[in-house]
Amino acid sequence: MKILAFAGSLRKGSLNRRLLRYAIEGAEAAGGVVDELPPDGLALPLYNEDLERDGSYPPDVEAWRARIVEAEGLLIASPEYNHGMSGVLKNAIDWGSRPPNVFDRKVAASFGTTVGPYGTARSQMNVRLCLTPLNVWVVPKTVLVPHAGKAFDADGELGDPKAADDLRAVGRVLVQAIQAGLGRL
Amino acid sequence: MKILAFAGSLRKGSLNRRLLRYAIEGAEAAGGVVDELPPDGLALPLYNEDLERDGSYPPDVEAWRARIVEAEGLLIASPEYNHGMSGVLKNAIDWGSRPPNVFDRKVAASFGTTVGPYGTARSQMNVRLCLTPLNVWVVPKTVLVPHAGKAFDADGELGDPKAADDLRAVGRVLVQAIQAGLGRL
Amino acid sequence: MKILAFAGSLRKGSLNRRLLRYAIEGAEAAGGVVDELPPDGLALPLYNEDLERDGSYPPDVEAWRARIVEAEGLLIASPEYNHGMSGVLKNAIDWGSRPPNVFDRKVAASFGTTVGPYGTARSQMNVRLCLTPLNVWVVPKTVLVPHAGKAFDADGELGDPKAADDLRAVGRVLVQAIQAGLGRL
Amino acid sequence: MKILAFAGSLRKGSLNRRLLRYAIEGAEAAGGVVDELPPDGLALPLYNEDLERDGSYPPDVEAWRARIVEAEGLLIASPEYNHGMSGVLKNAIDWGSRPPNVFDRKVAASFGTTVGPYGTARSQMNVRLCLTPLNVWVVPKTVLVPHAGKAFDADGELGDPKAADDLRAVGRVLVQAIQAGLGRL
Repeated sequence: MKILAFAGSLRKGSLNRRLLRYAIEGAEAAGGVVDELPPDGLALPLYNEDLERDGSYPPDVEAWRARIVEAEGLLIASPEYNHGMSGVLKNAIDWGSRPPNVFDRKVAASFGTTVGPYGTARSQMNVRLCLTPLNVWVVPKTVLVPHAGKAFDADGELGDPKAADDLRAVGRVLVQAIQAGLGRL
Repeated sequence: MKILAFAGSLRKGSLNRRLLRYAIEGAEAAGGVVDELPPDGLALPLYNEDLERDGSYPPDVEAWRARIVEAEGLLIASPEYNHGMSGVLKNAIDWGSRPPNVFDRKVAASFGTTVGPYGTARSQMNVRLCLTPLNVWVVPKTVLVPHAGKAFDADGELGDPKAADDLRAVGRVLVQAIQAGLGRL
Repeated sequence: MKILAFAGSLRKGSLNRRLLRYAIEGAEAAGGVVDELPPDGLALPLYNEDLERDGSYPPDVEAWRARIVEAEGLLIASPEYNHGMSGVLKNAIDWGSRPPNVFDRKVAASFGTTVGPYGTARSQMNVRLCLTPLNVWVVPKTVLVPHAGKAFDADGELGDPKAADDLRAVGRVLVQAIQAGLGRL
Repeated sequence: MKILAFAGSLRKGSLNRRLLRYAIEGAEAAGGVVDELPPDGLALPLYNEDLERDGSYPPDVEAWRARIVEAEGLLIASPEYNHGMSGVLKNAIDWGSRPPNVFDRKVAASFGTTVGPYGTARSQMNVRLCLTPLNVWVVPKTVLVPHAGKAFDADGELGDPKAADDLRAVGRVLVQAIQAGLGRL
């Protein structure tokens, strides 16, 4: 069973991307095989219907869509900009939603970290609401890591073991939900 | 497997309550046993922490909470007032969320009808976002029935067979998700 | 110019109600005359269309609606339950929205405090979205006071002078927006 | 007084862009001077903090930011993709929010059209919630134009005179709110 993991930020040193490893650990411990998108994996053209030709999409978009198709689940580290997900992430979702909607029947989990005190609380709501019409089951639990500037130690490890464990639990539940057959309903 | 079905309106002739029957048909066809709340089932006191005594709640609230505890799934017909669920429904959710959160690990589906053209699109988002922190899995699919004043025939039946079928499908998926073990994750 | 101030909680010792005083100070300093609702001011019947008789409403509801009619602005201390405003507050908004919508052309500001770390971030979004279709202008700035259990000193005063000042600023901006004529547009 | 008008779509034949003209008429009738962004005006790089150099931004981004700075108000035609605004529009907002936040104290109005029946109801909520933390006042009224495929005649004019008038009213209210001094509060 394949899980695609990615962060909604293009920054090389993305702190959100660092969260993925814990969720991935949980997913792998539960039997998932994780495909992690490279840091520039969401560097797609801006969505423009004029770029669609006879049902095909620009090459980078086709590659992104193919990667989703191959996966049964999604681990999404979503930053929060202006009380929502990044335009980068929304743009990638918009491309994936084009016919045929490649998100159909996937299961997803999302979580995130911000420099500020609210830990992407609002971004996670936005992610959930945008994936829902695409027929994605979203794991109820999320993990919010506030104060990102102080949340990681010099080795890039999360300082709070509870947050790390919660991320592992989210990855595990994602895989278990897929194993239960959720994506076939 | 027990499913609790209810509408977020106290009006005797609630059009949202009429939607329940189709979702219930789907749930029953998939093997669910449905407990339909009476029309005044959400006529609870307004939430007030001062009414909590040593972890116990007013009798009507205890009865409401017990009914959720007994169920594994929830079918919710949510009207839309002012771009959200009714205060009536939110009040009932607020009581159920008090410790111990009786919604924990339930699976829910929500849908609704409005007199206006948008069919509770925004209310369903509100329901989804409020159930999520209670650790409820919410079925991605919803059914929106706009123009409620013209949507039902003289016998109170939905005129649009597709909407009726979609409601049945939502009830069926709810039961299948519980059968898959979603509520045990 | 009259401003109606109230909290979305019925609890006698409501911490949200304590926030009102700072916003009221700011509103008064800018020239507003503030009418503060008593603690049980939102103890209305649950909304039920069957209680409407020839365009009139239950006495408590009429009193609530009259108080809004007399005001040009609203100061709302909104707690957060389950990622939304309280059912109590939503119920009061639902009654006020019934024809004629008494919220029409008001200006409002909302803010709040929670025991947890996120300070009603999500509740304020919910308040904003529900007031908007009622044709209410909502002040962009809000104030979130997290960790309510530690935020007030023994005299019930906010320990953080910046939060107190921010609340005063919100009250002042509310009055200035009304003075500018916003409610007549 | 300058108003910047733009649509959240890059498609040359964007139906949302066609809505702008009506709102612009209303804004102009009230005394506004409207600057309409060219169709590729939001064709910015995807947001990436690594592209920021000593507080300066890529040239296209600087041009976009300068155009907002010059305006006091914003007319936004926002399509709806996946229950939210387009990634294109969110990306442009994300760039504008970078320090110094060029949206500070602007007044905005948003509206939109979709091929489907719900007329961007959910996208407008998303736009409102994302502009709010940027200290933007958002006009409460919006205009939703469903069934975009049938909403325009052969000349590209809106077939529904009420929708056209509502758009004009939104443009007028935007200008009046700025004239009242809202952007100076």
